[in-house]
Amino acid sequence: MNAESIRKLFDQVRSGKLSPDEAVDRLRHLPFEDLGFAKVDHHRALRNGMPEVVFGQGKTPAQMASIFYRLAKHGGNILATRANQDQFAAIKKKVAKAEYRELARAIVLQRDQKNYGKGVIAVVSAGTSDIPVAEEAVVTAEMMGNDVEHLYDVGVAGIHRLLANRASLTRARVVIVCAGMEGALPSVVGGLVGVPVIAVPTSVGYGAAFKGLAALLGMMNSCASNVSVVNIDNGFGAGYVAALINRL
Amino acid sequence: MNAESIRKLFDQVRSGKLSPDEAVDRLRHLPFEDLGFAKVDHHRALRNGMPEVVFGQGKTPAQMASIFYRLAKHGGNILATRANQDQFAAIKKKVAKAEYRELARAIVLQRDQKNYGKGVIAVVSAGTSDIPVAEEAVVTAEMMGNDVEHLYDVGVAGIHRLLANRASLTRARVVIVCAGMEGALPSVVGGLVGVPVIAVPTSVGYGAAFKGLAALLGMMNSCASNVSVVNIDNGFGAGYVAALINRL
Amino acid sequence: MNAESIRKLFDQVRSGKLSPDEAVDRLRHLPFEDLGFAKVDHHRALRNGMPEVVFGQGKTPAQMASIFYRLAKHGGNILATRANQDQFAAIKKKVAKAEYRELARAIVLQRDQKNYGKGVIAVVSAGTSDIPVAEEAVVTAEMMGNDVEHLYDVGVAGIHRLLANRASLTRARVVIVCAGMEGALPSVVGGLVGVPVIAVPTSVGYGAAFKGLAALLGMMNSCASNVSVVNIDNGFGAGYVAALINRL
Amino acid sequence: MNAESIRKLFDQVRSGKLSPDEAVDRLRHLPFEDLGFAKVDHHRALRNGMPEVVFGQGKTPAQMASIFYRLAKHGGNILATRANQDQFAAIKKKVAKAEYRELARAIVLQRDQKNYGKGVIAVVSAGTSDIPVAEEAVVTAEMMGNDVEHLYDVGVAGIHRLLANRASLTRARVVIVCAGMEGALPSVVGGLVGVPVIAVPTSVGYGAAFKGLAALLGMMNSCASNVSVVNIDNGFGAGYVAALINRL
Amino acid sequence: MNAESIRKLFDQVRSGKLSPDEAVDRLRHLPFEDLGFAKVDHHRALRNGMPEVVFGQGKTPAQMASIFYRLAKHGGNILATRANQDQFAAIKKKVAKAEYRELARAIVLQRDQKNYGKGVIAVVSAGTSDIPVAEEAVVTAEMMGNDVEHLYDVGVAGIHRLLANRASLTRARVVIVCAGMEGALPSVVGGLVGVPVIAVPTSVGYGAAFKGLAALLGMMNSCASNVSVVNIDNGFGAGYVAALINRL
Amino acid sequence: MNAESIRKLFDQVRSGKLSPDEAVDRLRHLPFEDLGFAKVDHHRALRNGMPEVVFGQGKTPAQMASIFYRLAKHGGNILATRANQDQFAAIKKKVAKAEYRELARAIVLQRDQKNYGKGVIAVVSAGTSDIPVAEEAVVTAEMMGNDVEHLYDVGVAGIHRLLANRASLTRARVVIVCAGMEGALPSVVGGLVGVPVIAVPTSVGYGAAFKGLAALLGMMNSCASNVSVVNIDNGFGAGYVAALINRL
Amino acid sequence: MNAESIRKLFDQVRSGKLSPDEAVDRLRHLPFEDLGFAKVDHHRALRNGMPEVVFGQGKTPAQMASIFYRLAKHGGNILATRANQDQFAAIKKKVAKAEYRELARAIVLQRDQKNYGKGVIAVVSAGTSDIPVAEEAVVTAEMMGNDVEHLYDVGVAGIHRLLANRASLTRARVVIVCAGMEGALPSVVGGLVGVPVIAVPTSVGYGAAFKGLAALLGMMNSCASNVSVVNIDNGFGAGYVAALINRL
Amino acid sequence: MNAESIRKLFDQVRSGKLSPDEAVDRLRHLPFEDLGFAKVDHHRALRNGMPEVVFGQGKTPAQMASIFYRLAKHGGNILATRANQDQFAAIKKKVAKAEYRELARAIVLQRDQKNYGKGVIAVVSAGTSDIPVAEEAVVTAEMMGNDVEHLYDVGVAGIHRLLANRASLTRARVVIVCAGMEGALPSVVGGLVGVPVIAVPTSVGYGAAFKGLAALLGMMNSCASNVSVVNIDNGFGAGYVAALINRL
Repeated sequence: MNAESIRKLFDQVRSGKLSPDEAVDRLRHLPFEDLGFAKVDHHRALRNGMPEVVFGQGKTPAQMASIFYRLAKHGGNILATRANQDQFAAIKKKVAKAEYRELARAIVLQRDQKNYGKGVIAVVSAGTSDIPVAEEAVVTAEMMGNDVEHLYDVGVAGIHRLLANRASLTRARVVIVCAGMEGALPSVVGGLVGVPVIAVPTSVGYGAAFKGLAALLGMMNSCASNVSVVNIDNGFGAGYVAALINRL
Repeated sequence: MNAESIRKLFDQVRSGKLSPDEAVDRLRHLPFEDLGFAKVDHHRALRNGMPEVVFGQGKTPAQMASIFYRLAKHGGNILATRANQDQFAAIKKKVAKAEYRELARAIVLQRDQKNYGKGVIAVVSAGTSDIPVAEEAVVTAEMMGNDVEHLYDVGVAGIHRLLANRASLTRARVVIVCAGMEGALPSVVGGLVGVPVIAVPTSVGYGAAFKGLAALLGMMNSCASNVSVVNIDNGFGAGYVAALINRL
Repeated sequence: MNAESIRKLFDQVRSGKLSPDEAVDRLRHLPFEDLGFAKVDHHRALRNGMPEVVFGQGKTPAQMASIFYRLAKHGGNILATRANQDQFAAIKKKVAKAEYRELARAIVLQRDQKNYGKGVIAVVSAGTSDIPVAEEAVVTAEMMGNDVEHLYDVGVAGIHRLLANRASLTRARVVIVCAGMEGALPSVVGGLVGVPVIAVPTSVGYGAAFKGLAALLGMMNSCASNVSVVNIDNGFGAGYVAALINRL
Repeated sequence: MNAESIRKLFDQVRSGKLSPDEAVDRLRHLPFEDLGFAKVDHHRALRNGMPEVVFGQGKTPAQMASIFYRLAKHGGNILATRANQDQFAAIKKKVAKAEYRELARAIVLQRDQKNYGKGVIAVVSAGTSDIPVAEEAVVTAEMMGNDVEHLYDVGVAGIHRLLANRASLTRARVVIVCAGMEGALPSVVGGLVGVPVIAVPTSVGYGAAFKGLAALLGMMNSCASNVSVVNIDNGFGAGYVAALINRL
Repeated sequence: MNAESIRKLFDQVRSGKLSPDEAVDRLRHLPFEDLGFAKVDHHRALRNGMPEVVFGQGKTPAQMASIFYRLAKHGGNILATRANQDQFAAIKKKVAKAEYRELARAIVLQRDQKNYGKGVIAVVSAGTSDIPVAEEAVVTAEMMGNDVEHLYDVGVAGIHRLLANRASLTRARVVIVCAGMEGALPSVVGGLVGVPVIAVPTSVGYGAAFKGLAALLGMMNSCASNVSVVNIDNGFGAGYVAALINRL
Repeated sequence: MNAESIRKLFDQVRSGKLSPDEAVDRLRHLPFEDLGFAKVDHHRALRNGMPEVVFGQGKTPAQMASIFYRLAKHGGNILATRANQDQFAAIKKKVAKAEYRELARAIVLQRDQKNYGKGVIAVVSAGTSDIPVAEEAVVTAEMMGNDVEHLYDVGVAGIHRLLANRASLTRARVVIVCAGMEGALPSVVGGLVGVPVIAVPTSVGYGAAFKGLAALLGMMNSCASNVSVVNIDNGFGAGYVAALINRL
Repeated sequence: MNAESIRKLFDQVRSGKLSPDEAVDRLRHLPFEDLGFAKVDHHRALRNGMPEVVFGQGKTPAQMASIFYRLAKHGGNILATRANQDQFAAIKKKVAKAEYRELARAIVLQRDQKNYGKGVIAVVSAGTSDIPVAEEAVVTAEMMGNDVEHLYDVGVAGIHRLLANRASLTRARVVIVCAGMEGALPSVVGGLVGVPVIAVPTSVGYGAAFKGLAALLGMMNSCASNVSVVNIDNGFGAGYVAALINRL
Repeated sequence: MNAESIRKLFDQVRSGKLSPDEAVDRLRHLPFEDLGFAKVDHHRALRNGMPEVVFGQGKTPAQMASIFYRLAKHGGNILATRANQDQFAAIKKKVAKAEYRELARAIVLQRDQKNYGKGVIAVVSAGTSDIPVAEEAVVTAEMMGNDVEHLYDVGVAGIHRLLANRASLTRARVVIVCAGMEGALPSVVGGLVGVPVIAVPTSVGYGAAFKGLAALLGMMNSCASNVSVVNIDNGFGAGYVAALINRL
């Protein structure tokens, strides 16, 4: 154990084998990791209600099953994102209670049902093709113990659908907005609510959408001041940030 | 005159100096421009009410004055875009009736007051910094004989200002929308009206606006089907296209 | 029904249960959607002759068949773009009168044969590879009730083929021009006609064509003033905008 | 006043001049703005403690003074960003209590001293050249009623300076991180804290920094899950989002 | 025949049925193509030794066979670029003398063996992966009647291999240089010869090669003054331009 | 002189001071430059009629005068490109016969009047703003001993002006085409002539022209097979390549 | 042998068949390669311990086996990068001692076990997905005779893992750092060590990672002065440069 | 002092006031910075011969003088990069021995003359415009105690000049290569030497050079395996890395 070498120093000081000066001197040359353990405890406290997260893309079913199984030995929730049916089948054999959230392309094991959030997180998406990203945000926020409401298919070209649901938006403590193509929705939503908006550009679109670049640039330049942005298709990141905010 | 050489051919054929075969043969070797004149007339007909246009940027006051003076000898309106006060001062000395439209950075000489448009063109802009581009569109459409209404400072983050003026939008036969930053406004406007929308990305913004690129990409990917786009800051082009549509 | 809650307010005012002041006050807190219904009617009027549109790409045959079948219950035309043979086979079983326009990669159900346009829309394309995009524009304009003429394979490097067909161009009330590679054709066409030109960059080309970016930039910078641009490969958008213009 | 026309409807219903059915019918055709006032009130409630904001860049001293003077007539704080000494001199003559925050390039008028935040906002910056952006975030958060701590010149290449100040970071309820060049600092900070991190790419750097693009892309791809990003040099946006979070 | 209608005009003038004035007037309204025939003849003369060219990529074997067969009915060479074995098999059945140049991915039918070039064209390539592009240039130049020498695998990092073959380079009347990755070879070759160098960036490379963009930019900025550039992987274009130069 | 050390080796072998084996061995260790001299002579032969070239941009008048004066001591023409009036004034004092070609921004000293070209080089430009680039090409070709014809302001949107001058184009042995904005002109010209076309993208334009990038990409993707491209605004390079071709 | 022709010259001079002047003259016209041999020897000396390297990607198993077999005839190590199992199977049949390093996707034949390096090369990677690139660096350095230590999965968002292993880093004479996404790790490592750091951006990531571009730009702008960068995913290059440094 | 609190712990343990267990426990909660001091000493050892470095760009003369003066109080060399004459004048008044290296745009104070390098560093540049960057590398390496040779104006288009100086290159222990435009020089140099090459893209060039981007991409894709790259115009970084290598 890392603390041992430090403990030993103190023992030697007590027994008079080392003067305090000598001990301080030796401490300077101890490898860093011996001193790092305090942080771990501190972090554990912070991590209450945080799921273990696995990025599924590019992993074989066998790899996924093995990782998932190992994580499942400890308590807490587990969330595998960008996961497919084959990976789920492999996991299911080892961890019977795992579930597949198809729309979100996520595998979850939910054991901690506690609500860690103080309000509702709203997840808005522009088109039906944005739903997988939006659902990834939803499942992430849920695995972190939040109430989530979603509002899909409310693109800016049919602004009345968005306005008709404004009540639901204004109830939210944080809003996540997923949009591809021109990525204009976060600006409009941002103007309707007084809370933080997390914008997720999606790779939905073609041609000059350039796989989400147009939406990303649009969101970075939002004329609404309450908007900040995560990576293209990063529903997980948006759900994670929103959940952190909702805990405050 | 170009037609002369052709006329001469026919004369020679009539007088028997040339056989028809010889004439056809000679015709093959006449320079192209001799045959092109029909097009000119045809074009003149089309061009009724079209202003002569000068792009002012990068020209000296002396150059501008000389060009403007020469154009002013013929009838019709004259429009100098991207023009400054110095250029105007130089022009004013030679063409006393020229006016400076400061907001639009345009110098105009309006002699043809006829209304060539069949309805109203609405010009919408997102922020106050977009106004010079919007005004360039306005003055272009006006010089081409159109009724123009403008609706400024109606950005998407304050969507209620746009909606509050929906009536004015729905009156229009064509709508021009100028917006910088994320360039989201044309999508929203496009969803509110059933007529063609000409979108003009502006170079307003900073950072990831990349001098209008973000707005341009956003508009190219508009989820509203009735939107087409012109170059960054090209208020003239938008006004021109809108005027052509309004004549139909 | 949404209007009910407002109706109720009026009833209460009439019966004296609420003073007008109280009623105004309550109105302030009604959810927005109760007030939005007027717009729907207004829109319905505008939408005469508009087809229902489905974006086929990425949808399963089953999904397509189900969406198409549902839309087919109402009147009007249906247009599914970016659709393939498998999707058509699935739709055909449910909607026997659906047709597949192979060149355009579109599935249509045409029930409204009325001509809503006032003139002819010309669709021009540069190379044979641009034809699918051009045909998407054609079928869109046709489903919206327009006469369409097409003029294919008239690239700028063989300018005489374009000039030889100028007559057909000058007959048109709106012109759509599809071109990949350098995207120069809209400028040339724009110079030959006096009506609006809708330019569609296509992803045809290789290397520095960058999947349509070169054509897109070229068209944005067109030296012809009557050109506006839609997204790369967006034949639908061009057809839609052209149809709107042709109705005016 | 907008509400008048609605009020009038209710009066007419009460007096029996209109039946409730007729009133509902008329309401459908009232222009939108008559109904929009409720939102304003609602927004005013949300806006407690929000400063009026002016973007100074590109405005003349006279324009700035005039805008600032007008805003100063109402209560609340005023914040002018991207402002210079000349603009301040002009404002100072009209609004004697205005102050210039030189590092932040901001002019402020602070009249509402109330603390609207529930904790501390930490503002971290990588290099001394990032300080103007960081200070813009600081002054924004302060004008919105927050306690702000700053931690400057803690770039990732000297990670020990950052670690030595970890205590201060872990105290914060929200952290803003400003960094140019490779934009790596938010990831490192994100790993050290359990709260939301707002990352601000700055245009500091040269060559392949491409005026903030490298930092922007770096931050979008942060491997820390608690990071979201605002526009290049957008200290204001970061301060605004952080203040909103700190109110929750 | 197009000239007929013009001939008829002359006949009518000679016979007195039309006055010269009337004839000129009618000429104005003749469709353009009637006047264009001279150009065709002129072009035919220019086109001696020019192969018919088909771009194979994306075409089915059946389409290729049909096009190739039709072209084969006339004299002259035929060149199908970006062609595969399946396309060749289909063509072979219809045009027995067609050959497949595997390295060049080209199908050729060579019937005109005449040498139209005045000197030798040298084709240089940097790496073995650039050979398909280089061979496309070779076969193009050969089909246009040129002597071609090739010099492969002489990348700039082993400059001695290039220098050792300088003699062969200095014999050439035009030099084509194909290179991917950093695209530096044309500059080096350009400095060694006093004749025009046609540079072809190839998509060879990975990572920051960005599918030929790095090589393209490198070549555009060549410090050798005798270098001009064609599109990425455009071996055909380089061979074509070189052949035109070699005919002069 | 470099050859001396080698000559010495042979002398020592003849005199028996060195065996052939020893001589070969020493040769291996001679510095490279001793062997390089043949190339110099060879190059001098090639360089007949080549001007000395100075790139003026960024150099002080004093530096320019000094360089120009030194070059003027030898025979042959001198060409300073991107040069301004101040530089010319400084040069004029030292080299009285130097001339300033204002449109081309070039300073020349022409002493070799010999015609090295075999035909005419045509220089075409799209707009008046492209003239400086076109003139740089003209003056370069002239300094290299060529007959040059220019044809300005023949943009593709007014295709008839280009066609009217086709005769002049078809006389040329090489054609240079300068165009900014969408850069479409080389494709059109390329389709009209059967000789090599050197395309020069110019930085003329604004917005999505991106300082010549749009024109560059357009020209790289030209659908005319006889087009190759030089750097943005590189009139010198185009003139140089054209002159080399015209010598062949 | 190349030196022969030179040797012959010396023989002829000694025997008086050639005067030294004639010999020098002939030497001028000898092909270059006859003179280049000194360099070869010189290079061979430098190349001690250098493996022969084959880039496997895109080569067929048969091609790979044939190349590998030919290289195996000479002594020294052989390294095939970007190689797959099929290629290995083919090689294994011909060269029984070849081994497949699966993680590195490399095939090696190690015959020279000598240690050419003077210290340890440390290879650090940020995430598990970066391991293939890191392992390519490892195997390259090993084939060039170096002791290599690796330190994986020490991303910047968990900076304590990196710090805990600082001892191992500070032992290294050169450090290679592989990272995708934001590419921040080299800056942090650079700040912890006083030796050269070779940074390798990897294509790991999605969305705005743009296949390694974000990491590449990040590393180019590293605020640590001891960082230089190789191409995206270029583990081989990093290993090669590190090995060269470690030999010094 | 930070170490005090730790020292106090040991004192308390020795005096029996704390048990070793209690001391370890308290240590866990001490703020991190108390433990960080060891690293400082360690670093100081590493930093022998390292200059203090100031980035001059954007700093006022007064700021520069003040920073420089403060640094000058300690021993060792000082290097201010991107510095101008005005800054130097201000510094000179306070630190009389400071010198201005004009070509390098650097201000230096050299007090440590010791040679820390084991061999020669060669600095190569392509054109005269690259010299400022090259000189920045030279002065950096010199301030870090190295022998530096430079070799300027040896661009790839005149490869013989480079080859003629190969001897000087092969003497070097590390080579720095600065080049703008196409950035091809590092590849050529890399092929000529067997030591590490540090490539510095410069912003020299115009048009498609895109301020160094073309050179940067070219160098990243170098076909020479011994090349690594630093930021555009980053002569300092190259000199720094080379000096670190030369110390090994």
